[in-house]
Amino acid sequence: MRAAIAGASGYAGGELLRLLLGHPLEIGALTAASSAGSLLGAHQPHLPLLADRVIEPTTADVLRGHDVVFLALPHGQSAAVATELGDGVLVVDCGADFRLADPAEWELFYGGAHAGTWPYGLPELPGQRDLLRGTRRIAVPGCYPTAVTLALFPAFAAGLVEPDVVVVAASGTSGAGRSPKVNLLGSEVMGSVSAYGAGGAHRHTPEMVQNLSAVAGREVRVSFTPTLAPMSRGILATCTAPAAPGLTAAGLRETYETAVKDEPFLHLLPEGAWPATAMTLGANTAVMQVALDERAGRVVVVIAIDNLTKGTAGGAIQSANLALGLPEEAGLPLNGVAP
Amino acid sequence: MRAAIAGASGYAGGELLRLLLGHPLEIGALTAASSAGSLLGAHQPHLPLLADRVIEPTTADVLRGHDVVFLALPHGQSAAVATELGDGVLVVDCGADFRLADPAEWELFYGGAHAGTWPYGLPELPGQRDLLRGTRRIAVPGCYPTAVTLALFPAFAAGLVEPDVVVVAASGTSGAGRSPKVNLLGSEVMGSVSAYGAGGAHRHTPEMVQNLSAVAGREVRVSFTPTLAPMSRGILATCTAPAAPGLTAAGLRETYETAVKDEPFLHLLPEGAWPATAMTLGANTAVMQVALDERAGRVVVVIAIDNLTKGTAGGAIQSANLALGLPEEAGLPLNGVAP
Amino acid sequence: MRAAIAGASGYAGGELLRLLLGHPLEIGALTAASSAGSLLGAHQPHLPLLADRVIEPTTADVLRGHDVVFLALPHGQSAAVATELGDGVLVVDCGADFRLADPAEWELFYGGAHAGTWPYGLPELPGQRDLLRGTRRIAVPGCYPTAVTLALFPAFAAGLVEPDVVVVAASGTSGAGRSPKVNLLGSEVMGSVSAYGAGGAHRHTPEMVQNLSAVAGREVRVSFTPTLAPMSRGILATCTAPAAPGLTAAGLRETYETAVKDEPFLHLLPEGAWPATAMTLGANTAVMQVALDERAGRVVVVIAIDNLTKGTAGGAIQSANLALGLPEEAGLPLNGVAP
Amino acid sequence: MRAAIAGASGYAGGELLRLLLGHPLEIGALTAASSAGSLLGAHQPHLPLLADRVIEPTTADVLRGHDVVFLALPHGQSAAVATELGDGVLVVDCGADFRLADPAEWELFYGGAHAGTWPYGLPELPGQRDLLRGTRRIAVPGCYPTAVTLALFPAFAAGLVEPDVVVVAASGTSGAGRSPKVNLLGSEVMGSVSAYGAGGAHRHTPEMVQNLSAVAGREVRVSFTPTLAPMSRGILATCTAPAAPGLTAAGLRETYETAVKDEPFLHLLPEGAWPATAMTLGANTAVMQVALDERAGRVVVVIAIDNLTKGTAGGAIQSANLALGLPEEAGLPLNGVAP
Repeated sequence: MRAAIAGASGYAGGELLRLLLGHPLEIGALTAASSAGSLLGAHQPHLPLLADRVIEPTTADVLRGHDVVFLALPHGQSAAVATELGDGVLVVDCGADFRLADPAEWELFYGGAHAGTWPYGLPELPGQRDLLRGTRRIAVPGCYPTAVTLALFPAFAAGLVEPDVVVVAASGTSGAGRSPKVNLLGSEVMGSVSAYGAGGAHRHTPEMVQNLSAVAGREVRVSFTPTLAPMSRGILATCTAPAAPGLTAAGLRETYETAVKDEPFLHLLPEGAWPATAMTLGANTAVMQVALDERAGRVVVVIAIDNLTKGTAGGAIQSANLALGLPEEAGLPLNGVAP
Repeated sequence: MRAAIAGASGYAGGELLRLLLGHPLEIGALTAASSAGSLLGAHQPHLPLLADRVIEPTTADVLRGHDVVFLALPHGQSAAVATELGDGVLVVDCGADFRLADPAEWELFYGGAHAGTWPYGLPELPGQRDLLRGTRRIAVPGCYPTAVTLALFPAFAAGLVEPDVVVVAASGTSGAGRSPKVNLLGSEVMGSVSAYGAGGAHRHTPEMVQNLSAVAGREVRVSFTPTLAPMSRGILATCTAPAAPGLTAAGLRETYETAVKDEPFLHLLPEGAWPATAMTLGANTAVMQVALDERAGRVVVVIAIDNLTKGTAGGAIQSANLALGLPEEAGLPLNGVAP
Repeated sequence: MRAAIAGASGYAGGELLRLLLGHPLEIGALTAASSAGSLLGAHQPHLPLLADRVIEPTTADVLRGHDVVFLALPHGQSAAVATELGDGVLVVDCGADFRLADPAEWELFYGGAHAGTWPYGLPELPGQRDLLRGTRRIAVPGCYPTAVTLALFPAFAAGLVEPDVVVVAASGTSGAGRSPKVNLLGSEVMGSVSAYGAGGAHRHTPEMVQNLSAVAGREVRVSFTPTLAPMSRGILATCTAPAAPGLTAAGLRETYETAVKDEPFLHLLPEGAWPATAMTLGANTAVMQVALDERAGRVVVVIAIDNLTKGTAGGAIQSANLALGLPEEAGLPLNGVAP
Repeated sequence: MRAAIAGASGYAGGELLRLLLGHPLEIGALTAASSAGSLLGAHQPHLPLLADRVIEPTTADVLRGHDVVFLALPHGQSAAVATELGDGVLVVDCGADFRLADPAEWELFYGGAHAGTWPYGLPELPGQRDLLRGTRRIAVPGCYPTAVTLALFPAFAAGLVEPDVVVVAASGTSGAGRSPKVNLLGSEVMGSVSAYGAGGAHRHTPEMVQNLSAVAGREVRVSFTPTLAPMSRGILATCTAPAAPGLTAAGLRETYETAVKDEPFLHLLPEGAWPATAMTLGANTAVMQVALDERAGRVVVVIAIDNLTKGTAGGAIQSANLALGLPEEAGLPLNGVAP
């Protein structure tokens, strides 16, 4: 089976390629927009095995004939490509186009017409694996929603928290993509942590609300503040919600131990240890810790992922593995690169 | 007037010296524990003007005879030194010993006997300048409580928020001091954001509760999660609390504009801009933004400070200026070093 | 006396403003090209005292009427502005246009017509202060040539080395300016040191050759390799040349001690200590160490400067101080910000 | 076949484990000194698959019974362990004990008695693979000598350069190990590049001299300046030597193209591109570029490696693969993790 990658010159595309080099899928066409015609080595010099591959333009003609097509495109472009490819091809969209079920939310946060909804590529959500097996369309979750949903779904599924969530997350700069902008220059981001899109403005907020409300079975409110940290990769999300009456620390821990027990990519740290993004660099693993703050009356879950691996390309491949009938862990590193 | 600095070989001591080199106070004795006998240049090579000064041991004999003594010592050591120095000397304690009013809180979070309470060195708090003018004892606030209290006191003073605060803050590594520990090695912290002391365990939590409860006039609950970011300096604190009924975005902004208007070290960004720690590097300035998240029903305040300047040494000098009858801004940079 | 700054929205412009806020010169017009019409606070948020100043377009009309005009413009634009301003105004060019004496070298490395040569703003060079006192034109040296020339002029002036220099220097990213480019994104530069312009291609090479040849009194060859390091500011240059016959370590050190003795901005570390760029952050200081490697037969000089301070804006102000008859140290920090 | 790792709680040990998790060797005993008795997860939290493994004390009894023993110990400790293990076991020493052939050099740079010399684990050196196949003792090269030798052996083997080498290299902090020291704290290293061990003092210098002299067939002089850069991993070494008479750029490039052609881990960039350490993160690859600087009369080779992978653990496994008769590439990533 062969895979094409649209958007091969960007960060998500590069991470897809790095992972696919160790995956049973064969790497077929590599495409991009403005980089078409250049060699991949000019954009992804950390992948010497692919250095001489020529990047082609992102057209249905080029992408056709593959068993899987991974799309790492700016939002708004995936629907047209998918339609042209037809229903027989597995299309995995790393963009936002097919994540939100509610057209009003889409229009409010993204503008323009809603493209539709595809099966949501977060296999750890209750019941989600069944929806992904054999599917030919996957909407890969956003990086922040991946972290926040994994952190809080066990608590909401078990009714341990009230639906009033506060999330503050730090992300590495690769989450903002590879388009050159002044605020993403090394000179601006090194030595500095900054907030952005705060006060409810970030586009990933409705996706978190959608996911957690579905698990909770009632409307969940989410106050989300993203921050940019001086590192290339990684998300550390601190997620809190009021503890339900009667919750104990032991009960909380037991719920999380049960939730992660059979999950290959979820790792709960021993009590007293807290996550660091370095624990997950290059791995498809989410590392978590949970505590009950009795004085503040809140449950606190901290989770670390690599935004490009579990948060984008690794998550995409994990769901694609399910869709293709491959082992879910195929080609996905469990161990990080540290220090 | 002459100042002595106890703890001159550490980060807080170095920052006190950097600022005092541009301050009307003359720099007198420099003391330390294990570094006594060595030259300051071996520890603070960024201060060539003081490179040849010999570090003396931290004893009352050495510190006596100065008009001001700044203590940057491990907690538990300041009370004895202050007693020996007597009431005539201004003693400014950068440590935690005299911050908390409640002995039970002290014992719970620090252990051992409570040393007492000194005037709290946060001049921006309502009524606080009067307590600091002419005092001979100052308890310099912790770095995190400085940020969080400055961020939220206007909202609590005006009754705009409910007393259920969630704070997540990122700190540079200098906040953890200069003692060598594996988890603070460059190899561990670079490229990584990590949580620590979460779930209500961090010692700065009761200080935040004390400050905000005093302003609010009722008990405030604080869920505080500190994180370590890959930068040497800076704190970015995201502080949220439920909006009081009827609060409007315009009313919120007006309250903050009024609160900072006459404050030399508080800077409210134009609407739409959010703080970055790089805006405050080496400056005694706190840079803030505030927003009302109507969907989540919460007020969000993000604040940036330099943990070593406004968060420690600059804050100490600002309060000392008031105690000594100097202009409050004497020797304190308003502008940061960026990029 | 009033100063105008052309290029106020860039990194060199921002550093000029930060330093001028503590300098006897009054800050007049701030100008830029594409940023004209916006507020300075949108570009230099670390300078709250100037946040509400409006940026004007860079025209002779706007710049006229000031006693000093600092130009921080892309190369090729300074000559026209200077001509329009006339001979009565002190024009300090932070660009490359007037540094090289040899038109052939200019054309080879920069292309286009040579604009001419102005007095070279490196006061530490033998005899240079006399050329700068009272001048109305100053060519500020490049950041790398500043470091390398300061490192090696004592050795060449004393005839201690052969004219076969190898320099490898690491620079922070601010040296590459504020124009957004993919290779300067935080995601690309963090966690990575990279070489560029190696093999003799970097434009600062002929400037080093010119300076060192003038001091040596004969043609000096320079192999220069610049590298980009994951930090915003700072240059660390390692400069080596074959030791002249008979040179001793003691003689070498004595020469350097003599060279720096009366220089306010040159600091020679105690024997055994080596420079770090953090020693100079935000300071106009150059920190050096020198050693004789007897086995390799080479003199090794390592020097650290802040590329934006001593390497650009601080150096510019230092020379301007001489031109204006002010104390050479006016407004220039001697101490760095660390850690 | 089973492998034991002595020094499993350090950085080299962690990298050996990360690589061995994808290698045909089974992971046996993990040992350490002061960490014995603790769980590996407390030290290497990026390796969740090994989190519950107990670290044992480093004794011959524990290490015995494995087919391969990797030693990542402080220098001076390997000889005793190897003797106790006997000749049948493959012992791979990541330390310095058996690298230098000349006892006088050992004593000068390391002090104490010379332990001997083992086959040197740099398969790319001419003739070296034959020495490594089937051996039961391997001395893994130092990280800097790995980079410098790989950069310059083609030029010396072909007689393209004179034996007067200047090397300046930047290393990530993991090269200095995991013992906590003030100068390795994140607060000290972030935002700063510093020199150390300059002037011929660094212990890796005689190893470079030994390697290059052997290839050149005459004594090579090396001026080596190491610097510490603000990153966890990676070495970028700039290596220059005077060009031999008549050398052309085309001839130089052809020599390097030939040298790397059949080497799985050496990658020569296209002309005009220069190495960055990010190209090699976590990979066993060395990325190079070469140029002839005709004005300066020198050949310049810049090379990037990951100091923990190709520079230590990956290099160790590569040589062990040869010794064990496994494919040389077994378990060794060719592609890096970027950005």
